[in-house]
Parts: sequence; C-alpha cells; structure tokens
Amino acid sequence: MMKNYLLTPGPTPVPSEALLAMAQPMIHHRTPQFSAIFNEAKENLKWLFRTEEDVIMLAASGTGAMESAITNCFSKGDEVIVINGGKFGERWGQISEKFGLKVIWINVEWGEAVDVEIVKSCLEENPNVKGLLVQASETSTTVSHPIKELAELTKDRNTLFIVDGITAVGVMEVPMDEWGIDILITGSQKALMLPPGLAFIGLSKKAWEMAEDSNLPHYYFDLKKERKNLAKDTTAYTPAVTLIIGLNEVLKQMREEGHENIVKRHDRLARAAKAGVQALGLKLLAPNSPSNCATGFFLPEEVDGKVFVKTLRDEFGVAMAGGQDHLTGKIVRLAHIGYFSNYDIVIGLSAIEMGLRKFGVNVEFGKGVAAAQEILIEEYM
Amino acid sequence: MMKNYLLTPGPTPVPSEALLAMAQPMIHHRTPQFSAIFNEAKENLKWLFRTEEDVIMLAASGTGAMESAITNCFSKGDEVIVINGGKFGERWGQISEKFGLKVIWINVEWGEAVDVEIVKSCLEENPNVKGLLVQASETSTTVSHPIKELAELTKDRNTLFIVDGITAVGVMEVPMDEWGIDILITGSQKALMLPPGLAFIGLSKKAWEMAEDSNLPHYYFDLKKERKNLAKDTTAYTPAVTLIIGLNEVLKQMREEGHENIVKRHDRLARAAKAGVQALGLKLLAPNSPSNCATGFFLPEEVDGKVFVKTLRDEFGVAMAGGQDHLTGKIVRLAHIGYFSNYDIVIGLSAIEMGLRKFGVNVEFGKGVAAAQEILIEEYM
Repeated sequence: MMKNYLLTPGPTPVPSEALLAMAQPMIHHRTPQFSAIFNEAKENLKWLFRTEEDVIMLAASGTGAMESAITNCFSKGDEVIVINGGKFGERWGQISEKFGLKVIWINVEWGEAVDVEIVKSCLEENPNVKGLLVQASETSTTVSHPIKELAELTKDRNTLFIVDGITAVGVMEVPMDEWGIDILITGSQKALMLPPGLAFIGLSKKAWEMAEDSNLPHYYFDLKKERKNLAKDTTAYTPAVTLIIGLNEVLKQMREEGHENIVKRHDRLARAAKAGVQALGLKLLAPNSPSNCATGFFLPEEVDGKVFVKTLRDEFGVAMAGGQDHLTGKIVRLAHIGYFSNYDIVIGLSAIEMGLRKFGVNVEFGKGVAAAQEILIEEYM
Repeated sequence: MMKNYLLTPGPTPVPSEALLAMAQPMIHHRTPQFSAIFNEAKENLKWLFRTEEDVIMLAASGTGAMESAITNCFSKGDEVIVINGGKFGERWGQISEKFGLKVIWINVEWGEAVDVEIVKSCLEENPNVKGLLVQASETSTTVSHPIKELAELTKDRNTLFIVDGITAVGVMEVPMDEWGIDILITGSQKALMLPPGLAFIGLSKKAWEMAEDSNLPHYYFDLKKERKNLAKDTTAYTPAVTLIIGLNEVLKQMREEGHENIVKRHDRLARAAKAGVQALGLKLLAPNSPSNCATGFFLPEEVDGKVFVKTLRDEFGVAMAGGQDHLTGKIVRLAHIGYFSNYDIVIGLSAIEMGLRKFGVNVEFGKGVAAAQEILIEEYM
C-alpha cells in the first residue's frame, strides 16, 4: 500500500473539483455549451494575466507557446537577447536560432538571477535588438529574474519584452499590463493545477503590431488567426475540450482565492520550505533570488541525487524533481506551486529527513519540519 | 484554498481506484455482471474475516449488523453479558435490551480493556448466558479488548462470542475461525476504505445453529434469508450496488497487500502516532491496551477540545475526532485506519503541534513529528 504525493514543479496536483469537471461526458466544441465555458475561461484568463489584452489558449505544452511567440512576432535575421541561466533560458535561444534569429546570449550562472545592469548595457550596445527573452521563474534552477526592472529597459524601444511565466503566473507578481510585459506565457500543469496539454499566451498592443510584419513560418501556432477565433469564443483548430472545462473550474477557484492570497500562500510555502532545508544544513541552489515555485537545494556530496530522488518517489511515495545537466544527481527541487498546502511542505521535509537518514546522513528528525512550522503557522494566527 | 485531510476513525479516506470503480455507470443488480462482482467480493470477504463460513453483506451501517446479530441469534429473555467500556459497548447493551434480552453489564473504565478474569467469573456465575458481546476495538476510547483470551471462555459453552470488529477487521489480528469467534462484524467506512453504507457479518456454525431457535422479530435483517441468497450470488433486498463494486476493488487491493503487511502497517502507524503524542507531553487515553485504529490523547486542561478539533478541521483542513460523553472536549482521536500512510501521521502530528501553539500551549515544533519519524522510517530501512 503506497500513497503518492506529487511535489514536483509540474505536473502538479489537480484538485478534485477540476478532476470531476473533466470527468463529465464529452461535449462537442462547436456548440453554444462549449462556447459559454470557453468565454468564461477567456475572461478569467485576462484576470489571471492582469491584462486588458487577449490571452490565447493553445492545445500545446508551454514550449509550443514559446515557439508561437518567436514565429509570430519576429522575422528572419532579427536580433534577440536571450537571458540564459538554466534549461528554459537556453530553450528561448534554441527556438530563436532554429527559426533563423540572431541570438545575443547573456549567460548567467545557474542558481543566480540576471544582473539588470548587464542587460541594460547589452541593449545599449545592440540598438537593433527586437526582443528580450527571459524566464520570470527559471524552473530548472528555482531562480526568479527581476521582471519588473527588466520591463523598464524595453518600454521606450522597438524591443519586445517576452516573459516565460510558466512557473510564475499564479505564483508570483507578474502583472502584465502594469509592468509592461509584451508577451507573457504560462502552461496548464503548473499553478493552474491542471494536467499538461494547454498553454496560454498574452500579447501587448506592441506585440500584436510587431506580429503584423513577422515573416517566420507557422501554421498551427497562428496567433492572429487564434485571436480572430477567440473573439467568437472558439479556436482555429480543435481545442483540448476537457482541459478547458477543467481550466474554467480552476480559474473560478483562483479568482475566489484572489491574487493577493495566492501570492501570499506561495510566498509562505516557499519561505517555509527554504527555512526547513536550511535548518537541515543543506545549501540552497538559489539563495539570492529564489522563485516561489520550488526550492532547490544541494544534497550532501556523498548522496547520489538520482538514487535519492528515485528512492523517495518509488519507496516513500513522495515525488520531487532532481537536477538537470551539470546539476544532475546533485540537487533536489521541492515544489510548492499550485494546489499545495502547508502539509505538502511538512510531507516533503519529513520525507527529505528520512531520506537523508536512509542514505547515511546524520540528520536530526523534525528539525526541518520545525523550522517550516514556525512559518506555516502564520496562516493560522 | 484549503486541502482537506480526513484523519478520523471512520469515515476514512477512499483510494482513487475505489472512487473510480464506484463512478462507473450504474448496472442492475439482478444480472450476471453484478453477480460476478458480488461473487468475487464474497470470496474475498471470507479471506478478510479468515473464515470458512459465509460473510453476509448488508446495506446498512455497522449498527445494523449489530442489531442483526442480536435479533437473529437470541430469543426473548435470553441472558447476555455485555462488556461496556465505551459508546459501542454501551450500544450492544442498548440493542439487547430493546429486543427484550436480559443484559448482565460488565462496566469497564473508559480507556481500559476488560479484565479477562472478571469475564470468566461472570460466565461461571451465570451458567445460562447465551452471548458474550464485546468490541475488538472500542473506537470511542481507542482501546482493544483481549479477543483471543475471551474467545477461550465461550468455546465449550452454549454461549455465542460476538465481536464488533468494526474498527478491528483489516487493522489487527482477529482470525475468526482460528480464535473461535462466533459472530464477527465490520463496516465499509473503516479499514475497508469505502464510504459508509455497507456492513458485514460472519457467523460460525454454532451461531447459525442458535439462529434456528431464535424468536426475535426481524424482517430486513434476516440473516438466514440472506445466506440462501448469498449462495446464489445475490441479496434478499436491493444491494448497495456501487458500494459493492467499490468493495470488490478494495478487497483486491487488501489481498495484494496481505494480512501480515496490513497488520504491520497499522501497528507501525499506531506506534508512531503514540510516540509522537507522548513526545509532546500529552497523556494517552488508552496507555495499556491501545487499539491500532486510532490514538486517543488528553489535551492540556486549558484547551477546549471541542474548539480545538473544530479549529483543526475548519482552519487547518485536518479533521480528527474528539471525545464522546464525559470525554467530550477533553480528548482528541488521531486515526490511522485504512488508507493511511506514514505521511498521514506526520500531517496529524504537525497539525496537533501547530494547534497547541495556537491555543497558547508551549510546544516545541517538530518534537512529535520527530518521535514518529523514528518509527515510520522502519518502512524504508
């Protein structure tokens, strides 16, 4: 008998209400019934993105929406700056190069946030840059980049500020219109608490204007075509009906909780996770500018992180994420994004404590949990 | 946003596999399809009860099965001994008196198990006693009575040994045939991990023989009629179709886990819960003969237990049970019965710790959790 706990930064746990909504008998998408659901979700997505602009829904993973941002807004040979401090920063650059853009890479050490001054200089040195591409939350390193400050740099330029908010939207502050983000992206399997399969992309007026001149090839990811369909409460191609029904459900839940409470909850869980990990003497991966989506930490050198993560998942029933590339086997990422409560942090930390003991590390049981409790109790006082 | 954790000694959490099985479209009960499911569940119930005899399924709560035991096996004026050490012991007596039996009460202090010697003397003093009625696990006081020893006392007498195993079957050792239990009862919403609505009753040959002479009135709870129907893989009256479909699913899961592992798991969780509670300086309700279904403990005097339990349930999302009758407001019962894992104990103890702090009790965070972890880790070593 094993109960399974999903403490990974995507997919994340799906609330029963969404699971039940998605388990209803299938309906057809070219019907008033579906259009009513779609319309409600569409309006609530604008609330989520904090924008007056349209937010397009794509039947794709987040990477699909990233590709659509590139292929709809740029032209062959355009210069873009990519902030590369992890797997997803790297992905911005890979997509851009695949479609013939000229990438100016700003490489950032994994675990650190980008230095705004470096980006500023880079933009000044490259007056023709058409796009500045970044992650609000770099999931692979549990870092958050300074989005508000970066947005300031592109405001008065012919440069789109493009933000992958896949593990930031619904977690941290990324008010699209207020901060001047030109393109904001997220996916269903993160703070939206849904299965994977949907991606969302919001474009500013400036982005829609640039899209008029774009000459890169795209067929499925045709944002202008989707925008026209969106106005009629439908999609250009068959939408992921079930996921959109689930989306409508979770967005209603999120509106009920409210932006402020959502951000506060993720912040509390993140602080608790970090305090717990540090109380156990473990080193944080992103001590300076952490993302509230997950807490990355280094395991003691004698522990093989790949085996550690596998053991917790398969023997303890507690799934967390490991590291990628040069961090493979070295770090663990304990998530706190979406449908997470105080007790998910308690579960995660108690499993880490028992895992360390199993792997021969001298650990005092309850020490990490206790440090977390000192913060988690804020919810109840 | 609140996640809810059900840590009560019934209803208990229902595994997804059972929920999904029960969410399938309704089928009719007088069909080969349903009979096949019923037959499989019937055989697996005999495995669960560890008996060669028939186990009857009733669409009723556990109390219905208790009533059926009385009304099918006794006659007006029959003498029975009732071991009364809690709400459910008391219930045996109330049902017996309602149907005109003469009850000889053996009252036991709440929190204690019955003394076998007292029962022995009582049986010797009352040679005409037709039944000895007891709980294997008295849920209201988290006590387990010495079933194996009590069974010895009735073996060579014309006395039925009737055991309410509602929170014992699937938790602790109660091998019906091996120990010589004449009637064993359980319900769906406990270790069977199902919603409430089904009760189960197994009768020994001796019990079926006594049933031949019974003259108490019953219509719905007609065990002889049900036994005849059981042989044809059906029930006398409409069965709770959905619950029996769920039953078939959980029984397969339980067979896979196996008696030994099930008992071991509940024992580990119970020891961990007790160690955690004691590490926090809280007094156990049943220190001497605890049931493995739940851990009852006294709150510090300054804490109103009714408000404490309500706060944990409604503000923390962690539901435990309080006390009944003279224990109302004084105790808490943290369950570990059925679909419970190590982390349910961690959740429960961390919530108790934070609850105590909220209620002004000076408690060291992580201390209860740590004591539990020292035992829970057995599963992984």
